[in-house]
Amino acid sequence: MRAVEAYETILLVGKEGKRYLVQPAPGGSWSSNRGHISFDDIIGQPVGQVITTQIGHEYLVLRPTTSDLIQHLKRTTQIVYPKDAAQLIMELDLWDGKRLIEAGTGSGGLTLAFARAVMPSGRVYSYEAREEHQRLARRNLEKRGLLAAVDFKLRDIAEGFDETEVDAVFLDVREADRFIPQVEAALADGGMFGSLLPTANQVSALTAALQAGDFVEIRIQELLVRPWKPVPDRLRPNDRMIAHTGFLVFARKISARHRHFWMDKRQRRRAVEYGNWPNRDDIDEDES
Amino acid sequence: MRAVEAYETILLVGKEGKRYLVQPAPGGSWSSNRGHISFDDIIGQPVGQVITTQIGHEYLVLRPTTSDLIQHLKRTTQIVYPKDAAQLIMELDLWDGKRLIEAGTGSGGLTLAFARAVMPSGRVYSYEAREEHQRLARRNLEKRGLLAAVDFKLRDIAEGFDETEVDAVFLDVREADRFIPQVEAALADGGMFGSLLPTANQVSALTAALQAGDFVEIRIQELLVRPWKPVPDRLRPNDRMIAHTGFLVFARKISARHRHFWMDKRQRRRAVEYGNWPNRDDIDEDES
Amino acid sequence: MRAVEAYETILLVGKEGKRYLVQPAPGGSWSSNRGHISFDDIIGQPVGQVITTQIGHEYLVLRPTTSDLIQHLKRTTQIVYPKDAAQLIMELDLWDGKRLIEAGTGSGGLTLAFARAVMPSGRVYSYEAREEHQRLARRNLEKRGLLAAVDFKLRDIAEGFDETEVDAVFLDVREADRFIPQVEAALADGGMFGSLLPTANQVSALTAALQAGDFVEIRIQELLVRPWKPVPDRLRPNDRMIAHTGFLVFARKISARHRHFWMDKRQRRRAVEYGNWPNRDDIDEDES
Amino acid sequence: MRAVEAYETILLVGKEGKRYLVQPAPGGSWSSNRGHISFDDIIGQPVGQVITTQIGHEYLVLRPTTSDLIQHLKRTTQIVYPKDAAQLIMELDLWDGKRLIEAGTGSGGLTLAFARAVMPSGRVYSYEAREEHQRLARRNLEKRGLLAAVDFKLRDIAEGFDETEVDAVFLDVREADRFIPQVEAALADGGMFGSLLPTANQVSALTAALQAGDFVEIRIQELLVRPWKPVPDRLRPNDRMIAHTGFLVFARKISARHRHFWMDKRQRRRAVEYGNWPNRDDIDEDES
Repeated sequence: MRAVEAYETILLVGKEGKRYLVQPAPGGSWSSNRGHISFDDIIGQPVGQVITTQIGHEYLVLRPTTSDLIQHLKRTTQIVYPKDAAQLIMELDLWDGKRLIEAGTGSGGLTLAFARAVMPSGRVYSYEAREEHQRLARRNLEKRGLLAAVDFKLRDIAEGFDETEVDAVFLDVREADRFIPQVEAALADGGMFGSLLPTANQVSALTAALQAGDFVEIRIQELLVRPWKPVPDRLRPNDRMIAHTGFLVFARKISARHRHFWMDKRQRRRAVEYGNWPNRDDIDEDES
Repeated sequence: MRAVEAYETILLVGKEGKRYLVQPAPGGSWSSNRGHISFDDIIGQPVGQVITTQIGHEYLVLRPTTSDLIQHLKRTTQIVYPKDAAQLIMELDLWDGKRLIEAGTGSGGLTLAFARAVMPSGRVYSYEAREEHQRLARRNLEKRGLLAAVDFKLRDIAEGFDETEVDAVFLDVREADRFIPQVEAALADGGMFGSLLPTANQVSALTAALQAGDFVEIRIQELLVRPWKPVPDRLRPNDRMIAHTGFLVFARKISARHRHFWMDKRQRRRAVEYGNWPNRDDIDEDES
Repeated sequence: MRAVEAYETILLVGKEGKRYLVQPAPGGSWSSNRGHISFDDIIGQPVGQVITTQIGHEYLVLRPTTSDLIQHLKRTTQIVYPKDAAQLIMELDLWDGKRLIEAGTGSGGLTLAFARAVMPSGRVYSYEAREEHQRLARRNLEKRGLLAAVDFKLRDIAEGFDETEVDAVFLDVREADRFIPQVEAALADGGMFGSLLPTANQVSALTAALQAGDFVEIRIQELLVRPWKPVPDRLRPNDRMIAHTGFLVFARKISARHRHFWMDKRQRRRAVEYGNWPNRDDIDEDES
Repeated sequence: MRAVEAYETILLVGKEGKRYLVQPAPGGSWSSNRGHISFDDIIGQPVGQVITTQIGHEYLVLRPTTSDLIQHLKRTTQIVYPKDAAQLIMELDLWDGKRLIEAGTGSGGLTLAFARAVMPSGRVYSYEAREEHQRLARRNLEKRGLLAAVDFKLRDIAEGFDETEVDAVFLDVREADRFIPQVEAALADGGMFGSLLPTANQVSALTAALQAGDFVEIRIQELLVRPWKPVPDRLRPNDRMIAHTGFLVFARKISARHRHFWMDKRQRRRAVEYGNWPNRDDIDEDES
């Protein structure tokens, strides 16, 4: 692995577990109440090493992962969890060359993860209505050298998107169900739609809007990460866990002239539930 | 989105929810007990359309996502779940340019997802001891045009890996704990280690081996996807769900000469649990 | 433990795991395609023994637990899960001497568990609108000798309950939110209310109705049982689990003249969330 | 519901959600930094009322449920969660008349719940090795008027239990697997065994001990309660939840002379898994 370069983003991990993102400038230094570290002792050195402050406190020097970055991002909006970013990238099928619309940008945590996923030849079109969010997100991506993959747009998405025939659209906005026509106009037939919603009420509204539109294979998921204590002879889960971040909703756009494809509602529901892989046999007709 | 090309892998979805991967050859056709479809009606056409068999059954033509591909892969080994592939790609920090060792290859489901993630400039070195598995995996990746990103190696990994200074190593083998010295020899300082293990006993053994080696920030996770029924006015979770696929174990290699970094066992455990983000306050010292 | 009596309900467990509830009549016999068992070989014998059919198949003779009974009850309605019955008994605080209203009776699975909990001096008033359900439930309780603890009522609960000052009311009806005035008329101040609802929409409606009424400490819970495989050297969860049975909703009635107790909505919500023990610190004010 | 009696245990709930167990003595008072309440204003009054301190702070007067009591018990040992107490009472089949051995007593939280369940004609034999725990537990049960249903025994259970032919045995001790012979000596054929264990390692050891003994229908469960926020128009789960309290292990004793019942290990495992209701189809033979 290459040595640390000047100004690249580096992760310092203290013994007590605290984590800091720093960008080492030649001649500069980082300081906390545990002493300071000269950046010249980091630049040009490999990662995975331990460095000591002048008063003897040790820090591990690591190259931050995308997961580290989105957790430690400077932000003014709700945190994005790496588990959700990961599942979105997988289910929206984001990889080299894909073109994705994201709204809203927020602090850019997901933008960063999406940009990494579609690089080098893909593109993220990231819409945001509030200028201060966009400014922060742009700075966050600039620091990690990811500006080239992103087009930032300052816009109320009610006015629609500039792009058409994109591979995927991701909505992280309060009333996602209101913007389905705009999504349909931008998304290619066969393209993926995704959203992340905090409440069950929002999920109901969005599901209804998608079913009324040109969407099939609607899937709703909760994604739970349950951490365990790494103690070999007393192995057990942590006492507490994150119980909820949001509901993930996915759907697939089909050609408007084939909207008839899933004829009646029952058939339609059955079909999308089949798509709710891998619970293929989990369909009951007579729900109360 | 571009039109369907001859021989590219396409997904056909029936109304009843059945899904088929096909590779349309010019002049050829696909047939089931619901009739047949001429491939010439698919090639050159956009996806997201509905096509009808000669006896009137409809199929939706889609371009399969990576998630579709790994679910519907021809396989002789245990299935890989897209949720786990997604989390591995995120936490192993796989994106364009990364070099990863994977063992074993199995049927190539994860290999496929990993290859997509590190393309175009990265590389997957995929080790497998059994020739028939490797042959199937190679065919699976060839069909999706992903051979260029993968080096297949037929080898018992007890003999070690050819590569050094790789960014990440992923072990999906029965006794992962036995191969930590080989992993240490191949992995760059600061590099990511990951494994997917079915049983708690394996997790104990691997955790102990990592703690005895050059690894910090050991994290153990279960990842659960809970699907909901897409019925807006009667919203509720599915009746059943997948309760277990495997335990995900992650760790980070540090330089061997800094193995002392986490001085005593208690400090070490505390530190790695802190790393078990985001449950930072979830540390109890007095466990029974 | 006492010997098996004639006509008491007994559980037979086959080697393959099949379970049968039988009521041994003197001189009678039980038969399946694995042969028959003479009841005279069971009556007067202890439980925990193995008995063999005339063609050599073995069955374990057990006394069924309440959990066994409600799982294997003859029923025409949705199954009740023992985990939910257990939590309802705990949180509705049902024990010797308590008086409980239940609606609807259904097939009597919960009625049976409730009756056992409040025996010998308590009482279950079980309301049901459909005569065929009541008839089946009555038969189910009669077979287990529990009729003395239950008053069955054939009634549309929109007309109200006969009892007042009861300790607890449990509603298992489609639109529980419509019957809160009737519940308030029957329930003593300080008494417990509970419901089991399949959908999130029903939970919303019921929560709103309770908040508009004389109720505090509203708690909503999902209860998940995750079974593990009993294999000591390969310990791991089952592959699949029940993902959803219903949402449990609990609340506590206060005196109508103290309805002002939780002054404003914010305070009220905060208070009930505090009541949502043990997640006392899990309150966020600024939800999206 | 009857009025508050002198010295009975009462629950005071503050607006901010704090909860206090008090025992009102005639002429006495309760005070906090929010003022004081004269007990004479509570005694003889109904519950479900609001009472005000001399400086205007309001408290709701409730009769505590068993769940309230075990949560707010004075204790020196690990907390017992009501959800686990509930499931134990259900699966150990505890109701009026049952005789149960419990070890160890701890602070008496489970003892209290068990005593309530088997009253009035049943009995809890509660073993504890440390005198200070027993003393506290006895005081906790005395305050709630439950001493009559419990025999406290100060004893290292390695020496065995005094009782025989009991209906159920519950072990909450560090190395439950070491005491299976003692359990077998005390438990009636067909009787229920239960345990609550924090770690997977303990579950492995106990499962092996039970399989080597006279036990069938071994079931291992995790029980998770996921609380939701009671906000009708923004319904969603709490942000955090308790991820782990302990593994519940249940088994059923059969007559020693029928130990052969489950012939070979495979058959045995299959059978107990079938018993692991309701996942009857969740059996895979070829686990890795």
